[in-house]
Amino acid sequence: MAKELTTRAENYSQWYNDLVVKADLAEQSAVRGCMVIKPYGYAIWEKIQRSLDDKFKETGHVNAYFPLLIPKSFFSREADHVKGFAKECAIVTHYRLKTNEAGNAVEVDPEAKLEEELIIRPTSETIIWNTYKNWIQSYRDLPVKCNQWANVLRWEMRTRPFLRTAEFLWQEGHTAHETREEAEAEAQTMLKVYADVAEKIMAVPVICGVKSANERFAGAIDTFTIEALMQDGKALQSGTSHFLGQNFAKAFDVQYATRDGKLDYPWATSWGVSTRLMGALIMTHSDDNGLVLPPRLAPLQVVIVPVYKSKEELAAIAAKVNEIVDKLKAKGVSVKFDDSDNKKPGWKFAEYELKGVPVRLAVGPRDLAKNEVELHRRDTMEKQQVSMDGIDEKIVALLDDIQENIFQKAKKYRDEHITKVDTYDEFKRVLDEKGGFVLAHWDGTTETEERIKEETKATIRCIPFGNPQEEGKCILTGKPSTQRVLFARSY
Amino acid sequence: MAKELTTRAENYSQWYNDLVVKADLAEQSAVRGCMVIKPYGYAIWEKIQRSLDDKFKETGHVNAYFPLLIPKSFFSREADHVKGFAKECAIVTHYRLKTNEAGNAVEVDPEAKLEEELIIRPTSETIIWNTYKNWIQSYRDLPVKCNQWANVLRWEMRTRPFLRTAEFLWQEGHTAHETREEAEAEAQTMLKVYADVAEKIMAVPVICGVKSANERFAGAIDTFTIEALMQDGKALQSGTSHFLGQNFAKAFDVQYATRDGKLDYPWATSWGVSTRLMGALIMTHSDDNGLVLPPRLAPLQVVIVPVYKSKEELAAIAAKVNEIVDKLKAKGVSVKFDDSDNKKPGWKFAEYELKGVPVRLAVGPRDLAKNEVELHRRDTMEKQQVSMDGIDEKIVALLDDIQENIFQKAKKYRDEHITKVDTYDEFKRVLDEKGGFVLAHWDGTTETEERIKEETKATIRCIPFGNPQEEGKCILTGKPSTQRVLFARSY
Repeated sequence: MAKELTTRAENYSQWYNDLVVKADLAEQSAVRGCMVIKPYGYAIWEKIQRSLDDKFKETGHVNAYFPLLIPKSFFSREADHVKGFAKECAIVTHYRLKTNEAGNAVEVDPEAKLEEELIIRPTSETIIWNTYKNWIQSYRDLPVKCNQWANVLRWEMRTRPFLRTAEFLWQEGHTAHETREEAEAEAQTMLKVYADVAEKIMAVPVICGVKSANERFAGAIDTFTIEALMQDGKALQSGTSHFLGQNFAKAFDVQYATRDGKLDYPWATSWGVSTRLMGALIMTHSDDNGLVLPPRLAPLQVVIVPVYKSKEELAAIAAKVNEIVDKLKAKGVSVKFDDSDNKKPGWKFAEYELKGVPVRLAVGPRDLAKNEVELHRRDTMEKQQVSMDGIDEKIVALLDDIQENIFQKAKKYRDEHITKVDTYDEFKRVLDEKGGFVLAHWDGTTETEERIKEETKATIRCIPFGNPQEEGKCILTGKPSTQRVLFARSY
Repeated sequence: MAKELTTRAENYSQWYNDLVVKADLAEQSAVRGCMVIKPYGYAIWEKIQRSLDDKFKETGHVNAYFPLLIPKSFFSREADHVKGFAKECAIVTHYRLKTNEAGNAVEVDPEAKLEEELIIRPTSETIIWNTYKNWIQSYRDLPVKCNQWANVLRWEMRTRPFLRTAEFLWQEGHTAHETREEAEAEAQTMLKVYADVAEKIMAVPVICGVKSANERFAGAIDTFTIEALMQDGKALQSGTSHFLGQNFAKAFDVQYATRDGKLDYPWATSWGVSTRLMGALIMTHSDDNGLVLPPRLAPLQVVIVPVYKSKEELAAIAAKVNEIVDKLKAKGVSVKFDDSDNKKPGWKFAEYELKGVPVRLAVGPRDLAKNEVELHRRDTMEKQQVSMDGIDEKIVALLDDIQENIFQKAKKYRDEHITKVDTYDEFKRVLDEKGGFVLAHWDGTTETEERIKEETKATIRCIPFGNPQEEGKCILTGKPSTQRVLFARSY
């Protein structure tokens, strides 16, 4: 084996950490909680980004860029934002270094202290709504539908690559609308965009729903979410879309002249997904051999490994393989012929399995003689001999098949891990023994939700859209309930 | 007129500031020296980005992402970097806010002080070379050719949108190589990529050359540059590529096993362009009517404005125009039919001229009757009647023609503003009366360069590649010189 992974059964958390490093996705940096996203990991992120960005543009959004730094006072403007928003932020207090007396190092110049401290954005509602004040005067200026791709920073105490890091990359959409209905529809539209990219591009099945009051974004009226299920039975919140009402408009005094000549506050949404999606991608599909990537996101879709003893054998293989490479490229498939001579085929097989390359072809002299290749698919680890005739078309179809198969596999696992329970004992037993989502009745109060969280570490992930209404009793308090809600332990 | 611009003759600097704001490219934010890049400006930047990114990938580079924050001590590791690098940086000293006693605002929590301050990256050589230490062990790990798209921050005292802002967006490439020759070639290759994108995509002619010692990047052995000329006769350094020797490898103790089993330090380059290119783009082509955009970067290439009195007239025009729109879109041309009814055609004409849309078609009932449109090209402001037959092909050809024309116009201006002088008096007179680049003999010393700068505000922009060698005397000291170098006042 090239690089050994801890198995999932042994230690799921260690398996994840190993995989992130050994598959060259990311690594810790010299700065606490900040990761380096390595080229292979970044190439996958770029494909996720491109898919999202295309959909943002299709749905009428434009990109812009707002400042990294936000004046401290802005965080006091929206009352719920003050109370509820995590305050673990990086704070800039000085603006100059100077060379020390010895001339061999730099130190902070105490003279260069800022009058008002600046916060590295943990999210940008405040600075963006302060900007929208200049942009929105009339109903003719609405809607405003901006997105930005940016880095943000939250001083998290316990970090894990992609899942929770101090600095992370994300996109944040911020929109302003004439009517409440339009803003609510926008928040839903963007959640749908997230769900589509998750399911169709990332092959990660998600449950769409609305958050309980307790789990809402600070300053939002409603927070919508897509929730995915990881292989250890824990949920991962993978994207959120917020209906903000008129809260930020009021906090930043953004008013516009309406169609009937009055003044009103626009209605707002914000929505974001981050490099956390990389965590969802890795943990949904991968196995003890390494990454499993959906073909639509794989930086390399097909690798071809020659199996040979002499230079002549390699030359004969290469001649045939180069034809296949050209045909695959012509069909838009990314492919690499790895004829490097410093690694054995077995090492290469393991390495590309670790990296999650969806399809591997191996070609030796005997294959060549039979006009065949050995085809290996990463998702099922199955091998078969196939004819070289029409191999390009077979591979194009196979890539689609793999994309669909890993989605169905993840969906089956997810569906098998949604359990209805009626008692608190059963609730706890399912969480401990089976994991996954648990559908249970809840009395609708924050107190109950918090007590359940304290006692079981499970939270309400969401109230699913189109949730069936049924009478029941809260698993904790026995009080009446009209619907089951979706609980899980989560990242 | 929609929005009046100050003319260039009146006040060039004010014209630029007006144009940036009125054409919706950028605006000041609430944070000193940090701008908001508005959607129209960002759409142009995205096209520049895409052009560059494609070329980076074609030349074998990969993208990655490194942390925003850099430990203070890293800036003391490379001696010249300490001495020479601008120290006006944003410094993070604390990591938590807390709600004040009144509960209505946040304040810095004095308990949450960092042990070592963190600097928002002004450039990333230090943190990247600290990372490369893990990546590079053997000659088989070389070359490393990474780029990152990122925001950086330098606490500039006097800022101007795009040209000099505290926070700006850029890309920074950082490469490591086995040999000096390979690294030097890489630095040249990337300068060529910059020059190509500047000239072929942005239509901005540039002079490629090497910086004098005094203007070199702190820590570099050689700095290569592309220099553009603005319409006020001042130069704009538009991109730089540095050959860093083994300086950063040594500072961060990056060594690798060579082919013959020894240990050596890899050779390095770094190279970057930023949103400053937006300033170059704006100031090279635009005029008193507003922006002039090269078609390859225009977010909107063609706008069609109907000229009508009745709804029936508009309907007849729209029917025909929609055919044209479809044909243009099929040819990959971005086009908008602006049938909004709250603005007069004259207002629209001025607005799209301000925004630099390369081609405008106006269609009224009489044009319709004659199967013609009025075609207006933004670069020359010329109007002509053209037949609707084959209008799509004409426009595709016209867009190429405009791209070429604005490049040639800028190049002519630039070439006419390169003046050879032989005396210091002439040097000063040309700078004051004509502006532009001045080719003059220089004795090669930093002292002379600095005295000239002090007395005339002109600096050596570069020693152009392939510079003719000729004997002469330094314009300031009269000492012997072997070549003229390129001086200018600059941004």
